[in-house]
Amino acid sequence: MKAARYEGQGRIGVGDADVCPPAFEEVQLEVAYVGICGTDLHILDGDMDARVNLPAILGHEMSGKVVAVGANVRDWKPGDEVVVVPLDWCGACPACLRGFSHICYRLNFMGIDSPGALQNVWNVPQRTLVRVPTDLGLMRAALAEPTAVAVHDVRRSELRAGQKALVVGGGPIGLLIASVATAVGADVLVSEPNGQRRQLIDQAGLRTVDPADDLAVAIDEWTGGAGVDVSFEVSGSQAGVDAAVASLAARGRLALVAIHSRPPTVDFFRFFWRELTLVGARVYERVDFEEALQLLERGAIPTNALITDVVPLSDASAAFAQLRAGQAMKVLVECGPLT
Amino acid sequence: MKAARYEGQGRIGVGDADVCPPAFEEVQLEVAYVGICGTDLHILDGDMDARVNLPAILGHEMSGKVVAVGANVRDWKPGDEVVVVPLDWCGACPACLRGFSHICYRLNFMGIDSPGALQNVWNVPQRTLVRVPTDLGLMRAALAEPTAVAVHDVRRSELRAGQKALVVGGGPIGLLIASVATAVGADVLVSEPNGQRRQLIDQAGLRTVDPADDLAVAIDEWTGGAGVDVSFEVSGSQAGVDAAVASLAARGRLALVAIHSRPPTVDFFRFFWRELTLVGARVYERVDFEEALQLLERGAIPTNALITDVVPLSDASAAFAQLRAGQAMKVLVECGPLT
Repeated sequence: MKAARYEGQGRIGVGDADVCPPAFEEVQLEVAYVGICGTDLHILDGDMDARVNLPAILGHEMSGKVVAVGANVRDWKPGDEVVVVPLDWCGACPACLRGFSHICYRLNFMGIDSPGALQNVWNVPQRTLVRVPTDLGLMRAALAEPTAVAVHDVRRSELRAGQKALVVGGGPIGLLIASVATAVGADVLVSEPNGQRRQLIDQAGLRTVDPADDLAVAIDEWTGGAGVDVSFEVSGSQAGVDAAVASLAARGRLALVAIHSRPPTVDFFRFFWRELTLVGARVYERVDFEEALQLLERGAIPTNALITDVVPLSDASAAFAQLRAGQAMKVLVECGPLT
Repeated sequence: MKAARYEGQGRIGVGDADVCPPAFEEVQLEVAYVGICGTDLHILDGDMDARVNLPAILGHEMSGKVVAVGANVRDWKPGDEVVVVPLDWCGACPACLRGFSHICYRLNFMGIDSPGALQNVWNVPQRTLVRVPTDLGLMRAALAEPTAVAVHDVRRSELRAGQKALVVGGGPIGLLIASVATAVGADVLVSEPNGQRRQLIDQAGLRTVDPADDLAVAIDEWTGGAGVDVSFEVSGSQAGVDAAVASLAARGRLALVAIHSRPPTVDFFRFFWRELTLVGARVYERVDFEEALQLLERGAIPTNALITDVVPLSDASAAFAQLRAGQAMKVLVECGPLT
C-alpha cells in the first residue's frame, strides 16, 4: 500500500508501506479522507522534530471504513463508516485518574506521536472509533475532528444561547468555533485581518470585523458598553490576546484555543477588575466528537466554505503547500482504497 | 470629632471633622477599629491620586456600633455591633444587571472613592451593614473585610475538601486565604520569601516553603508529580505568576488575587496543554462577609498572628509606617468613641 511520510526538512514523500493485520482489540480502517491542519504544518516546519519519529506518517483528521477487525472486537464489522478520536492515553497518570484522559500526561497523539492516517489503511485501537451517521458521507465526516475541537472550545467557554461571543482569528478553527457558537444560539462576531478569509466567513453566513478598524468601538456599540460574554483566542498573536481580554464583560470568559509557543503579556489588572476567567482548551473528548458529527449531520457546519480542495494521496504534499500559501481553509487528502 | 486624612504627598493628618446626622436610609456608626491594608499604602504613595479626592478619609476595613439611624431604617438600632461591606453600586450598569454588583462598572468603593472609616463616627447606607456575631468582639470583627476577601478568593477558586492548594505570597491576604482554604478542608502550602513572615505563618499552624528553595521539586514531591488543584497568586510579582502557573495539575485553577499594575508574561502554552483555568477575584459579596464572620467566630482565622499592633486614631500615621516597614501583618487603628 501507499503512505505519505514527513521525511524531515520540510519534505513529504509518498511511498510503499506494509499492511499489517489488526492486532488484539484493533480495527483496520480503509482511510477515506484526511484533513491537513496547522499542527501538520508546524511538523513540516521542523518545529516538532523532537516529538515525531522520522519518517513519520502524519494525519489525525480522518474518516474511513472498517475493513478488518482483530481479536476481541465485537462492536465493529467491515463496512462500518467511522472517524477516529486520535488520542491514546495511559489510564494511570494524574490527568487520567482525574477523568481528564484527553490531556493525559503521557498522551500518545496518533498522527503526531505515532503513525497517522495518511495511508491507504490504518490500524487503530477499537476504543478510538466513533460511528458516522448514516447520511453524512465520508467527505464531510472528515471534518469531525476539527469540528470536535470547536465543540470542545465552546463547551469549555460555557457559552449559552442569547450570549454574545467574539472569535479572534478566522482560520478553519475560528470559522468552526463561530459555527458551533451560532448553533448554540449565541450572537457571534469573527475578527480576522485577512480580507479573503473574511469574505469566506461572510459567505458562510457569519458576521466579521476587520481588527484594523476600531474593534473596541465595534464591541462597545454591539454590546451597549457591556462587553461580550465569551471571547475565543484563536489567533496565537499578542494583538489577539489583547483584543480577546479587552472585549470581555464583567465575569466574561476567554477560551484559549491557539497555541502560544511564546508567553504573551496579559492584562492581569483587567482579569482582576472584571473578574474574568481564562480557560485553556486542548483537543476534545469523545462527547465532543459525537456532538460534532450531529452538527455536521444537521448542516450546522459550513462544510462547503471549509473544504477548499481535495487532492489524491499521491499528491499529498500539494495539500501542505496550499495551506502554507494561506488562502485555503481545509484541504482534504483522498487516501483509499488500498492500492 | 476627629478624622485621619490622606493629605497627599505621603502625609496622613489627624484633625477635626463635622458630625452630620444620618441621612435617609443611612446609619451612623461609632467606629471601633479600622485595619490598614496594602491598598491604603498605595494611596499614601500617590498611586491612586487620580481616584481619591484630597483630603481623603481612608479606611474600609472596620467594625463599629450603631449610634443613630436615619429615616426609613427599621432593622438597626443603637448598640448593634456591625461591620460594613464598603461597596456602593449603581444598580444599573451591565455588571449590576448581571448580578455582579460587587464589580459594578461605576463602583463607589467607600474609603477610596468616598470618605472611609478613619474617624470617630461614619455614616453609611443601611444596605452595607452586616451584623457581628454576639461573642466575636469588635477587635476581631475588624478582620471581617480582609477575611471576606479571602473567602471570596477561595470561593472563586472552587477549592474543595481534600484538594491541594498553593498560596503564592504570605502577607495578610495570603495568610487569610491559607486559613480559609484550610477551613474548607484543603491541604495548603504557603510560598513566601520573607523569613519573618514564614515564621508568623508557621506559628499560625500553617505550612510554608521558601521559593528560593526548589519550589517545583517541593510541589512534585508533595503531589506525587500531579501538581496542585488550586493556586492563589497573591504576590503581584512575575516570579509569583510563573510559580502559580507551573504548580497546577491538569484542569487546575489559578485564582488571581494580587493587583498587577504591569501586565506579566503568562505561560499560555501551559494553560492550553493542561487545560488550566485562571479566575480573577476582586473584593467580595455579602455572602463572603457572612461566611467570614462565621469563620472568625469559630476560631478558624489566626487573629493573634494577624493583628500585630493596635494604635489610637491620633497616631494613625504610625499604622501606615509599621506596614510600610514590611514586618507587620495587620495594624488596627482604634477610632472611637466620639471625642
